[in-house]
Amino acid sequence: MRGVVMHAPRDIRVDERPNPVIEQPSDAVIRVTAACICGSDLWPYRGTDPVAEPTPMGHEYVGIVEQIGDDVTSLKVGDYVVGSFFASDNTCEICEAGYQSRCIHNVPMGALGTQAELLRVPLADGTLVVVPGTPTPDQVKSLLAASDVLGTGWFEVDAAAAAPGKTVAVVGDGAVGLLGVLAAKQMGAERIIAMSRHADRQALAREFGATDIVTERGDEGVAKIHELTNGLGAHSVIEAVGTQESMMQAIRSTRPGGHVGFVGVSHDVALPGLELFFADIHLHGGPAPVRRYLPELVELIMTDQINPGLVFDLTLPLEEAAEGYKAMDERRATKVMLTF
Amino acid sequence: MRGVVMHAPRDIRVDERPNPVIEQPSDAVIRVTAACICGSDLWPYRGTDPVAEPTPMGHEYVGIVEQIGDDVTSLKVGDYVVGSFFASDNTCEICEAGYQSRCIHNVPMGALGTQAELLRVPLADGTLVVVPGTPTPDQVKSLLAASDVLGTGWFEVDAAAAAPGKTVAVVGDGAVGLLGVLAAKQMGAERIIAMSRHADRQALAREFGATDIVTERGDEGVAKIHELTNGLGAHSVIEAVGTQESMMQAIRSTRPGGHVGFVGVSHDVALPGLELFFADIHLHGGPAPVRRYLPELVELIMTDQINPGLVFDLTLPLEEAAEGYKAMDERRATKVMLTF
Repeated sequence: MRGVVMHAPRDIRVDERPNPVIEQPSDAVIRVTAACICGSDLWPYRGTDPVAEPTPMGHEYVGIVEQIGDDVTSLKVGDYVVGSFFASDNTCEICEAGYQSRCIHNVPMGALGTQAELLRVPLADGTLVVVPGTPTPDQVKSLLAASDVLGTGWFEVDAAAAAPGKTVAVVGDGAVGLLGVLAAKQMGAERIIAMSRHADRQALAREFGATDIVTERGDEGVAKIHELTNGLGAHSVIEAVGTQESMMQAIRSTRPGGHVGFVGVSHDVALPGLELFFADIHLHGGPAPVRRYLPELVELIMTDQINPGLVFDLTLPLEEAAEGYKAMDERRATKVMLTF
Repeated sequence: MRGVVMHAPRDIRVDERPNPVIEQPSDAVIRVTAACICGSDLWPYRGTDPVAEPTPMGHEYVGIVEQIGDDVTSLKVGDYVVGSFFASDNTCEICEAGYQSRCIHNVPMGALGTQAELLRVPLADGTLVVVPGTPTPDQVKSLLAASDVLGTGWFEVDAAAAAPGKTVAVVGDGAVGLLGVLAAKQMGAERIIAMSRHADRQALAREFGATDIVTERGDEGVAKIHELTNGLGAHSVIEAVGTQESMMQAIRSTRPGGHVGFVGVSHDVALPGLELFFADIHLHGGPAPVRRYLPELVELIMTDQINPGLVFDLTLPLEEAAEGYKAMDERRATKVMLTF
């Protein structure tokens, strides 16, 4: 089969890779109908994270079940399915508590490389959610978003305790930040402040429900959030970047007793204890347990109540994956879909 | 009046200080009936925090109202009162949300020095809670504990989301850690693991409700907590020390999706972002909004449902304050009460 492989920073190729097979009776193999490139794929692309050897890429996917292992009971061949970027049994104590990305048997899908024609999905019963009916092309985009960026947006907003009457500020205007805006809107936030300097992303943020746009960042951005919130800071702040600056911007934009939900993969971040202490905020984040939200998200998408697929502003055939990485790196695209 | 003043690290004196007077119409002046020495007073005592000039000490207090300003309506002269270590108006949006220690008008009582015969209490209506009836000597101790260490214990356990069915681990066996054990018991935690190496503190932890004692610390302590929790970590972990080691011990002892409540005043703590990210925990802490809990705590104390005053294992007259600091520094005492 064909699949995307990163050979070195900025060296993206579509290679011939061995077809995956059922290895465990709880596995399924799916034919990927769409995959995508994640902002987090840019860390190794840019050389920030090391690329020790040629690495199959991708952790987001939707597809059609092609084969199931003997123990799989909730799926059948031909089902249209979506799953999270962590395979999970969905039955252990950690999954039961809603933290499927930290399932005691979790398998990171990034290790399998979903930007490929075929994909082995471990713990298929726990991992995959069947989509009712046949998705339209727009719904396919949205389901693909649900696999990570939408589910992550849902988690970050949940982690930030957004709710009716609350002011939510979003640090980061990538797909995850933008879908945080959408999630905050769905959860009834009264005011949603998107922090962005890019006109196209500001427009999408507005479409998803942002009520205010702040273009300043760092200390100036923090000052602006305080100005907009009667000097107190936002109730809920979402951090969707993963740098020291963005984390501190999020923490400092939050009122005492407020909540920061962080989902940017931290890079060289060290949080100063004393400042965190006196901030008196709640901090929660990490790899989003997307599986927790998938049934609800699939329902919202298949009934056209939300359209998160709008974050995909470039669609390319798998063979042109290298151009997709380049476009995201150069910020010509927010989020790239790969088709098969 | 007589009051404790720190002139330099390890140089504690009881000096003649000017009698406080009503400065604002919202002030009260109280005659302090008991004050105490806090673990956090040891930071400057040991020279970890600087002592730039002779500094009045103390932030915990109970007493009798001696004088009230013209705007004070909820108190009368002669009332027995207890307040938190932050004065707060208890009416602003931050107070309403339960974060009185970060009231927009907050005044740190430590700046006034409560280890003294008389004390000016700003924002008296918001700050002070009237104790019904006349407390017994044991109840005085417990009310004094409510002023900080008990209220902080309540907050940390609340922040760590302790609840029936949960396993709570407590890092730190000072007064705040021990009263975290008591609070966890009150909140119905199923299992309470106290981490302590001191026999006397272990005994008090058991008396307050600890079901297990772990003597190991650092990585070994973390391993022991995992051993006791089916390899998952505790649901709720309390950090009541404030060092890098104790914070990391708390974070690493918590299961994914679990909660860390931290109240140790952070000293040279820097939390590694990537580890925090993959821990997938909730983190909440800071200066405890003790005022939020005071009415409930006063009720529990005055009806003898809890006896947090047991943390005081040394009582000295005010004039012997220096010996009190020394005893706590040398760990001969967990918590020292000063009487008048």
